[in-house]
Amino acid sequence: MKADNLHVSVNCVVIGFDGTQLCVLLVKGEGKQGEYKMLPASLISEDDDLDEAAKRILKETTGLGAIRLLQFRAYGFKDIVNSCDDVRDLMRKHQIDPEQTSSVLTISYWRTVEINKHMKDGILGTQAEWVPITEMGKLLCNQERIVQDAIECIRFYSQKIPSLVFDMLPKEFTISSLRKLYCLLFDRDYDVRNFYKKMLQMDYILPLEKKQVGVSHRAARYFRFVSGSKRVRKE
Amino acid sequence: MKADNLHVSVNCVVIGFDGTQLCVLLVKGEGKQGEYKMLPASLISEDDDLDEAAKRILKETTGLGAIRLLQFRAYGFKDIVNSCDDVRDLMRKHQIDPEQTSSVLTISYWRTVEINKHMKDGILGTQAEWVPITEMGKLLCNQERIVQDAIECIRFYSQKIPSLVFDMLPKEFTISSLRKLYCLLFDRDYDVRNFYKKMLQMDYILPLEKKQVGVSHRAARYFRFVSGSKRVRKE
Repeated sequence: MKADNLHVSVNCVVIGFDGTQLCVLLVKGEGKQGEYKMLPASLISEDDDLDEAAKRILKETTGLGAIRLLQFRAYGFKDIVNSCDDVRDLMRKHQIDPEQTSSVLTISYWRTVEINKHMKDGILGTQAEWVPITEMGKLLCNQERIVQDAIECIRFYSQKIPSLVFDMLPKEFTISSLRKLYCLLFDRDYDVRNFYKKMLQMDYILPLEKKQVGVSHRAARYFRFVSGSKRVRKE
Repeated sequence: MKADNLHVSVNCVVIGFDGTQLCVLLVKGEGKQGEYKMLPASLISEDDDLDEAAKRILKETTGLGAIRLLQFRAYGFKDIVNSCDDVRDLMRKHQIDPEQTSSVLTISYWRTVEINKHMKDGILGTQAEWVPITEMGKLLCNQERIVQDAIECIRFYSQKIPSLVFDMLPKEFTISSLRKLYCLLFDRDYDVRNFYKKMLQMDYILPLEKKQVGVSHRAARYFRFVSGSKRVRKE
């Protein structure tokens, strides 16, 4: 008889920006209380490598491949198995007896991505969907707490690694859409003129000749993010 | 028969500065190949809360209490049980059959502390000792890799949270000892004059009236770290 009392799962918080809102990639499921939403996640086996397992699980549940996930935290869920019917059902699907399981430890991974890029080759035809963070509500196993921690993590890291913010934008973007993203991510209102001035000073933001076309307001210039090695110091 | 194949452990990387070198707190053990050193660590049970377990294990193995540990990474060790006799012996001590265990997952915690402060009420009378990082050599389960990752982690965080560096110094310190610590932590040589100038500009470093006494060279001034809420902007 096999009687593991502790199981380990991996989950992935993939965050994107749809031009209006910050979104998180969630997977739909059907439980006893109706439909629920959860992070792309799965139990892992003793032969799994953690980082590889995270990549595989994201691919299997959402279709998204080739994303370099970053680990950010382990959570212990002591009472999760007893507290939730849907979790017990999910365990049975994995041939695990919930009666013999008292604890699940989950290792969280995160990454920022550009939504449009990952709609085409990604989530279509899977149970996954992009959900605005303000509308995600309660997730299975209280995972909404993990999403909030991931946002904190992105805030912290993006001040040192700005590419994490630009990974959410198309290659060519306006300062106005960059400002919108900053306002959402840091939950504050950046003054339009000051933000514009500050961003133009950054050596990782390159102005292009290209401007918006077919807009009713004054056409805005496009910009591009330049990664560290290709930067030229601005005078 | 109980046949858990996967076990979870917690380990703590506590880093300090002895005035000359960066040190890590290690625990001695006696194995088949003689004495070994390892991080304060232990397997945890299914009823443990991760953060609480880390605190408890640090206290039990080193005597150090009241330290707010920060989690930084989970590691999977697929082949660790088969590859090391000493690990198998440690498992038997925990009433775990190594023949039935193929994998150990370990969650790492870290913190910077002032060594002197934690010598008095701490590690005396335990199997723990402060070891200079340059002299730690190979640790049980290749944990030296975890120590290196923790140093990277301290480097990254301390640029945003300077108190993590000052936690390693006494309350009153000279700029010269602060420079020594920076040189060790960031593995580079800071120019004496530039470093002094730069540090005096920081609003979190407060010069004191007090100077060194009984030194053969020119007595250096003492400084104090001022945490965020108590800072007065320098003109």
